[in-house]
Amino acid sequence: MADPYLNPRFVHNAWYVAAWDHEIGAEGLFARQLLGKPLVFWRKADGSVVALDDRCCHRAAPLSIGRKEGDCVRCLYHGLKFDASGACVQMPGQERIPPNACVRSYPVVERDRFVWIWMGDAAQADATKIPAFFWHDSPEWRMKPGYIHYRAHYQLVVDNLLDFAHLSYVHPTTLGTANVAQVRAKVEPIDGGLRITRWSLDDDMPPNHQRVARFQGKVDRWQIYEWHPPAFMRMDAGSAPAGSGAPEGHVVPQAMRFRHTSVQTPETAGTTHYFFCQARAFELDDDAMTEAIFQDVSTAFAEDRAMIEAQQRILDATPDFRPVGTTHDQALNMARHILKQRLALEVAA
Amino acid sequence: MADPYLNPRFVHNAWYVAAWDHEIGAEGLFARQLLGKPLVFWRKADGSVVALDDRCCHRAAPLSIGRKEGDCVRCLYHGLKFDASGACVQMPGQERIPPNACVRSYPVVERDRFVWIWMGDAAQADATKIPAFFWHDSPEWRMKPGYIHYRAHYQLVVDNLLDFAHLSYVHPTTLGTANVAQVRAKVEPIDGGLRITRWSLDDDMPPNHQRVARFQGKVDRWQIYEWHPPAFMRMDAGSAPAGSGAPEGHVVPQAMRFRHTSVQTPETAGTTHYFFCQARAFELDDDAMTEAIFQDVSTAFAEDRAMIEAQQRILDATPDFRPVGTTHDQALNMARHILKQRLALEVAA
Amino acid sequence: MADPYLNPRFVHNAWYVAAWDHEIGAEGLFARQLLGKPLVFWRKADGSVVALDDRCCHRAAPLSIGRKEGDCVRCLYHGLKFDASGACVQMPGQERIPPNACVRSYPVVERDRFVWIWMGDAAQADATKIPAFFWHDSPEWRMKPGYIHYRAHYQLVVDNLLDFAHLSYVHPTTLGTANVAQVRAKVEPIDGGLRITRWSLDDDMPPNHQRVARFQGKVDRWQIYEWHPPAFMRMDAGSAPAGSGAPEGHVVPQAMRFRHTSVQTPETAGTTHYFFCQARAFELDDDAMTEAIFQDVSTAFAEDRAMIEAQQRILDATPDFRPVGTTHDQALNMARHILKQRLALEVAA
Repeated sequence: MADPYLNPRFVHNAWYVAAWDHEIGAEGLFARQLLGKPLVFWRKADGSVVALDDRCCHRAAPLSIGRKEGDCVRCLYHGLKFDASGACVQMPGQERIPPNACVRSYPVVERDRFVWIWMGDAAQADATKIPAFFWHDSPEWRMKPGYIHYRAHYQLVVDNLLDFAHLSYVHPTTLGTANVAQVRAKVEPIDGGLRITRWSLDDDMPPNHQRVARFQGKVDRWQIYEWHPPAFMRMDAGSAPAGSGAPEGHVVPQAMRFRHTSVQTPETAGTTHYFFCQARAFELDDDAMTEAIFQDVSTAFAEDRAMIEAQQRILDATPDFRPVGTTHDQALNMARHILKQRLALEVAA
Repeated sequence: MADPYLNPRFVHNAWYVAAWDHEIGAEGLFARQLLGKPLVFWRKADGSVVALDDRCCHRAAPLSIGRKEGDCVRCLYHGLKFDASGACVQMPGQERIPPNACVRSYPVVERDRFVWIWMGDAAQADATKIPAFFWHDSPEWRMKPGYIHYRAHYQLVVDNLLDFAHLSYVHPTTLGTANVAQVRAKVEPIDGGLRITRWSLDDDMPPNHQRVARFQGKVDRWQIYEWHPPAFMRMDAGSAPAGSGAPEGHVVPQAMRFRHTSVQTPETAGTTHYFFCQARAFELDDDAMTEAIFQDVSTAFAEDRAMIEAQQRILDATPDFRPVGTTHDQALNMARHILKQRLALEVAA
Repeated sequence: MADPYLNPRFVHNAWYVAAWDHEIGAEGLFARQLLGKPLVFWRKADGSVVALDDRCCHRAAPLSIGRKEGDCVRCLYHGLKFDASGACVQMPGQERIPPNACVRSYPVVERDRFVWIWMGDAAQADATKIPAFFWHDSPEWRMKPGYIHYRAHYQLVVDNLLDFAHLSYVHPTTLGTANVAQVRAKVEPIDGGLRITRWSLDDDMPPNHQRVARFQGKVDRWQIYEWHPPAFMRMDAGSAPAGSGAPEGHVVPQAMRFRHTSVQTPETAGTTHYFFCQARAFELDDDAMTEAIFQDVSTAFAEDRAMIEAQQRILDATPDFRPVGTTHDQALNMARHILKQRLALEVAA
């Protein structure tokens, strides 16, 4: 039987982004559903983040409408109190707490302004495997963090990010030039993921670069990114004056250098959390430029979302769909194969 | 096992009305779901209408949010271009277009102000089988086209149209008189469909005829209609002064002669497109009368819809329903039998 | 296989509350869905209440949008008329009415301001088994009837009512004191149900008693209630001055004595009708007090509903839930066992 075009199962043995760091404040409780599971998050007094199932083990009330008490959370249905490990430490009206009175907790790591979570087999959670996003909090880069919610399966967003031919059609006034769809990207397997390289030499400056331009005229533009499963895209992108040597590694001072982040975490089989930012290595103190770049990317991502949610509605109405390939599909076909293998490994285990 | 009261399957080898002609303009793209399938329509430069699956063969993006280019459509996700036959004629970034890169197209005929579509086996599409609705654009008749959307299975609308006993109860202030439910209609099988004849002699003038009355007093009223599967109703109706000879074929000048159209096309198994009009053969240039008749029928059809959508909700809550028959059910039982046979033929083939 | 935490089946051989008496007026028709079935209610000229399936036997149109004619109802689709027994007594246009032309009727009893219905095997409907709620219309008690609708399975409401530990956490400003969750209630099986007794001696006066207080200071508070399946809770509750002898049965005049009613009737497997009132035996003519008590209980019940509907959403997202018990679960575990046995009996029969 053919694989479903949208796989209802998720990879579990992987680090996912649960939130931007600022979404989980020092006070209060934060609720978010990931991989179909409602979760509750909070910060301990030492600032570290806790993640538990958002479900009291007693009667399934959500802990997120409970109360934070020190480093613990109290369910405000019948008053059970849980510590940061998920162990029940108080049951009102009784001395003995049964050992199975606990809520599942998840390994959490905070790094590069992301709160990372591991929802699979905790014994396999290795924080050294978390991909780096150093431009999120480096003094040499500046960005504003973004988040959007999709009513679509995360694989449709992955597809989108792995085929930049859409820039010419979905983003003609933001990210794309007509040329993009004509150039086939170079795709290479790297350790467990993909590296995608696209150079546009002597091309028009794309609209979003024009709006923060530090020079005029034709550009040599690059988009070099790594994709790793389940859904991380890290991109080195930029425009330099045409012929100034960028392809050979000579980046002149007026070049515009960006680092881009696009990360998806499934909420359910039909909805997705999308974390993004566009960091730059120039004019770091120009707050208006930070905001302008953020707005530009937000506009472009709203263009993507309109298309992808429409695509999801068509797939919902006609689940028999089998795609016909194009030359630009190489990366996304490889990515789907990687995800399929990861899922097969988990099912086998 | 008993047949379901509402059959989730549709007859496919049949002409259906997709739209009124004016709904598909010279410019732009028109999206409508028929028989559960999202479709996109547009007009070529020669005015003829094209119908394709509203689903790009590459990644299932809807073509209807793409762009019309000449007689072609371009998907605005990755830029694939399709001609009116559904063949892909351009894939940005590649020379060779694989032969399976195409979108299904459907036979379309424009006639009597209706855009007709055939969604079954194209080899069986015979335009000579399209039923005539000559009063839609004849100089001897005048009408204003109507459309309503139903949250109900199309068979419930067919049931409604084949049992006019409801006129006395659903439409007491619009189409009905108390007498209608007392008179059993004459029902005859005709080629693949039904002819239904109802005469009310020396009866009160129905409210909707009163509002455009050309004479006063008792009437001889007729409602003679043909029904054909899947869902066409064409009616010759009118009121003449009682005793003026209408039943014998003598139609006096002051008689009010109408032709009525009621056509349903399933959108999904639970929703229906309903195309209607009420044409008249008198006072052709009285635009206020055209509008008054349109409003009267629209009011009556809103009455039907309220009842039928309520009926659908009851059937959704209690799918075990088995109907008890009345004497007025003859036509609708025959129609359901005809539809069942048509479906059985398709399943067998 | 483990039982589902929320059983989608209902007990049918039981009396249920369909409505408060005033909800079904002398005129008109009243529609309400119970145990998944749409029903229509009306009053005959003698004041007695009729309950039929809200579904015409002809074409499933809801009778509740029909017309009451004397003690009968007429379907306003094709005009069939049904008497109070559900028998069709008129089919427009025909003399003979087939014997199977009828709508199912249900035994109804009106008692204690409740309209009771029996939706199971009618032969087993024994009105002497209806539990008494004498305080609803006794001259010695005063109450205002309440109703709320829940988007939750009725068992979650039953759970709530059988574990008052939640009063300390859900209702700290209305019904609860911190003490409640510390005291384990006494639970005794009684004929087919449970008796639950909770005394709080020398305790703070709960907020809702304070607002109608007839004395100040510490109280001896009691909550003594009977629960019967499917979902009846009848409570004798009150506060007397601490040490004034209430536990020994000596109720001083300034004591505040209440009778509380909490009754659930499933609407569907995911929604519930909840009928309640809080009657008092003092200051009977103080209408402002009647209203204040009603508002207090309504506020508290909105607190419960917010928690229980949130609980339902968690269970919908994670249907694998298996609860961990607490010492306060004794009554609700017994109640779930009683309901399970009742359902097993019906399935066996």
